[in-house]
Amino acid sequence: MTRWRLTIEYDGEPFFGWQRQADGPTVQQVLEEALHRMTGERASFTAAGRTDTGVHALAMPTHVDVTRSLTPHRLREGLNALVRPHPVSIIDVEEVADEWHARFSCLGRRYRYRILTRRAPPALDHGRVWHIPVPLNVAAMSEGAAHLIGRHDFTTFRSAQCQSDSPVKTLDRLDVVQAGEEIHVSAAARSFLHHQVRSMVGCLAMVGRGQWSPDDMRKALEARDRAALGLNAPPQGLYFVEAVY
Amino acid sequence: MTRWRLTIEYDGEPFFGWQRQADGPTVQQVLEEALHRMTGERASFTAAGRTDTGVHALAMPTHVDVTRSLTPHRLREGLNALVRPHPVSIIDVEEVADEWHARFSCLGRRYRYRILTRRAPPALDHGRVWHIPVPLNVAAMSEGAAHLIGRHDFTTFRSAQCQSDSPVKTLDRLDVVQAGEEIHVSAAARSFLHHQVRSMVGCLAMVGRGQWSPDDMRKALEARDRAALGLNAPPQGLYFVEAVY
Repeated sequence: MTRWRLTIEYDGEPFFGWQRQADGPTVQQVLEEALHRMTGERASFTAAGRTDTGVHALAMPTHVDVTRSLTPHRLREGLNALVRPHPVSIIDVEEVADEWHARFSCLGRRYRYRILTRRAPPALDHGRVWHIPVPLNVAAMSEGAAHLIGRHDFTTFRSAQCQSDSPVKTLDRLDVVQAGEEIHVSAAARSFLHHQVRSMVGCLAMVGRGQWSPDDMRKALEARDRAALGLNAPPQGLYFVEAVY
Repeated sequence: MTRWRLTIEYDGEPFFGWQRQADGPTVQQVLEEALHRMTGERASFTAAGRTDTGVHALAMPTHVDVTRSLTPHRLREGLNALVRPHPVSIIDVEEVADEWHARFSCLGRRYRYRILTRRAPPALDHGRVWHIPVPLNVAAMSEGAAHLIGRHDFTTFRSAQCQSDSPVKTLDRLDVVQAGEEIHVSAAARSFLHHQVRSMVGCLAMVGRGQWSPDDMRKALEARDRAALGLNAPPQGLYFVEAVY
């Protein structure tokens, strides 16, 4: 048996998220079915992060155990041929130690959230950005984001379905930058609660529109209450960027 | 009657190009049908460039004459609502003089061609790049591109269907740059022949792979013969970037 680390890029639009579901196609299912067709083995893929419906990944680390002897090249090429036509691509494959774990060995995760702020809706980036048709105040958003950095109880920014044992997380970075017609929010932490990035971005957008003051971010955090959440940003602007081990 | 200049972004993937066709949806048709539903008028859109099937536009200038009195805001918002769900977006609208012409007043056109050179196929950028799964020699491509700059007979790089009176064009720029995992070729000229950019990029890719020397670009140009063409690059990597008036 060999444990393989596979780094996956995917377009989240047609999927019901990463994790296997009864009611629709998922990235995990596409990978597991491709591996089964290639090897005859029923093996389970584990990812660093379990993204929701519509959320994308630029480089999602996963692992899977395979009995059949394969080269990294063969595994990557075989899976890339068999996942078609789904928008999933295996961009890197390497053999890892049996105790390496895509989720539990992960020391840091990084997400990017893209907001398009021009008046006209996106044509080329439909399903890839959150379209807000008015300008946002980036300086105010940055000021609001600073209140969330550090170790806090993020209950306000956590979905009701979150399975984490504790709402306390350490947020290492939450940067807001203008990138042409877009605003990018970059978030880094060892781990995140379910919906945490989207919830933080949703509230930052309220700050950007002037509906909230930057200090309202602090108040929302300190409320430790989901009811204090301003807005949960939609999934299509969110990208899992990378994981650190 | 008012002549309107409308700047259009579109994803070329689902379209049979810009120009109206009997056999499939085109960008022109989507815009004209939206305008008809909005105003009851049957007016024709003219674009700065008539892109082929699968070719994208970031900012394609067009013009159309409308009898009904409208504000720029109303026209843009109305059309953007009515073109849905097609991946077409009106990003700018302004009133222009009756003699302004999107095609004939245009003094310069700029295209970008995106080549993805990593081994794994694109997931997020499927239909948006030309995937070449081996590294390309960018320095050799730049050297080859330099042979095409200036005023030349571009017969070699012209499709059999080209309707231009003359094969002589002046190429102002043909830059090849590395951009992460991609190589971008930027082309600028007053006007281009049909398939000229794709034909130049196809040959540059042969130089990048080492199948042609940089000097083979010069030989191909001087042959003034379509049979001397190495390769026509596929449409999905090509973007109409902007036009100058």
